Amino acid sequence: MKINTILFDDFETLDVFGPVEIFGRLPDDFTVCFYSQNGGLTKSVHGARIATEPFAKIEAKDNVLFIPGGSGTRPLVKDREYIQCLKQFAAESAYIFTVCTGSILFSKTGLLEGKKATSNKRLFQWTGMESPAVKWIKNARWVKDGNIYTSSGISAGMDMALGFVADILGDDIAVKQSIEIEYNWHRDKENDPFANMHDAKI
Amino acid sequence: MKINTILFDDFETLDVFGPVEIFGRLPDDFTVCFYSQNGGLTKSVHGARIATEPFAKIEAKDNVLFIPGGSGTRPLVKDREYIQCLKQFAAESAYIFTVCTGSILFSKTGLLEGKKATSNKRLFQWTGMESPAVKWIKNARWVKDGNIYTSSGISAGMDMALGFVADILGDDIAVKQSIEIEYNWHRDKENDPFANMHDAKI
Repeated sequence: MKINTILFDDFETLDVFGPVEIFGRLPDDFTVCFYSQNGGLTKSVHGARIATEPFAKIEAKDNVLFIPGGSGTRPLVKDREYIQCLKQFAAESAYIFTVCTGSILFSKTGLLEGKKATSNKRLFQWTGMESPAVKWIKNARWVKDGNIYTSSGISAGMDMALGFVADILGDDIAVKQSIEIEYNWHRDKENDPFANMHDAKI
Repeated sequence: MKINTILFDDFETLDVFGPVEIFGRLPDDFTVCFYSQNGGLTKSVHGARIATEPFAKIEAKDNVLFIPGGSGTRPLVKDREYIQCLKQFAAESAYIFTVCTGSILFSKTGLLEGKKATSNKRLFQWTGMESPAVKWIKNARWVKDGNIYTSSGISAGMDMALGFVADILGDDIAVKQSIEIEYNWHRDKENDPFANMHDAKI
């Protein structure tokens, strides 16, 4: 199974590489791949430049579509062609995995309508402004609705990635991974210590 | 101040990008830069390829030298020319920041001799085998000795990065950052929940 990671300029660094640390430790039949719309080097908001293949090379079918957040989502939520690409990949994917404002970007496909989801808590007002037909849940570290996993802000992607590992390979494997990376896994997806810690400003 | 991040093939993904998420949020007079011995694309152990500049372009003086770990450290601890480069950069740097087995790689410079340090807990036996003259501390999430910060495995780099931010800019800034990234900061550097959780095997 491929973890098709979608990058764009000004993606949030840890949104991507927290989960990649965890997905990258899965058995050999899982591979993490990096794509951007046109391929080439894609820059994180903190200046890391990552090599990517173009969207044309994505094999979406039966794989995982992973969409991170970051300030780069701001122009993309208005980019119909981009959203249409994501919608097509998502329709074929076995699982969809969005972190932080990647959830809002993904919501523009319409595929979250009527479904439960969460996103970054500092920008939570933005969720309903962009996609009011989604059942946005504020007090959740992450949300699973069918084959769609959406997480809260930035670090929450790691907790959800371990939750995903637990769901598909068992809790023991996820706990083992968390110990290997010496990470204090926040396992309760329904409890979000950051839900009400931010001023709700955009 | 530049955060001179040293990459090599098979670096551990989160060792680098956990701290980069935090360093990248510092005020504009801090910049994260990525280097490898010869420059070019450098591949993490989980398959991310990162663009780097060559060692020849590092401006070490009065900046931060950041050395991550990962399986790529195994050949490098035996590479005298490489170690000599690190030693020279470290001598000029204002701060040295090592994560996971990056501490062991750095210890080969001799600059940790007689100093307190820590490293990955799963491979902790390796520390004393490589550099017995270092005061390796097992029960520590991270250790600060003078201008040298060394952390435990992988995720611990984030806790230490926030600790570094607290030391140089104040506790309030570090707490604010941890909330922004929705990260449950483990602030007690002297308490390591993973110290005795691994079998001590190499």
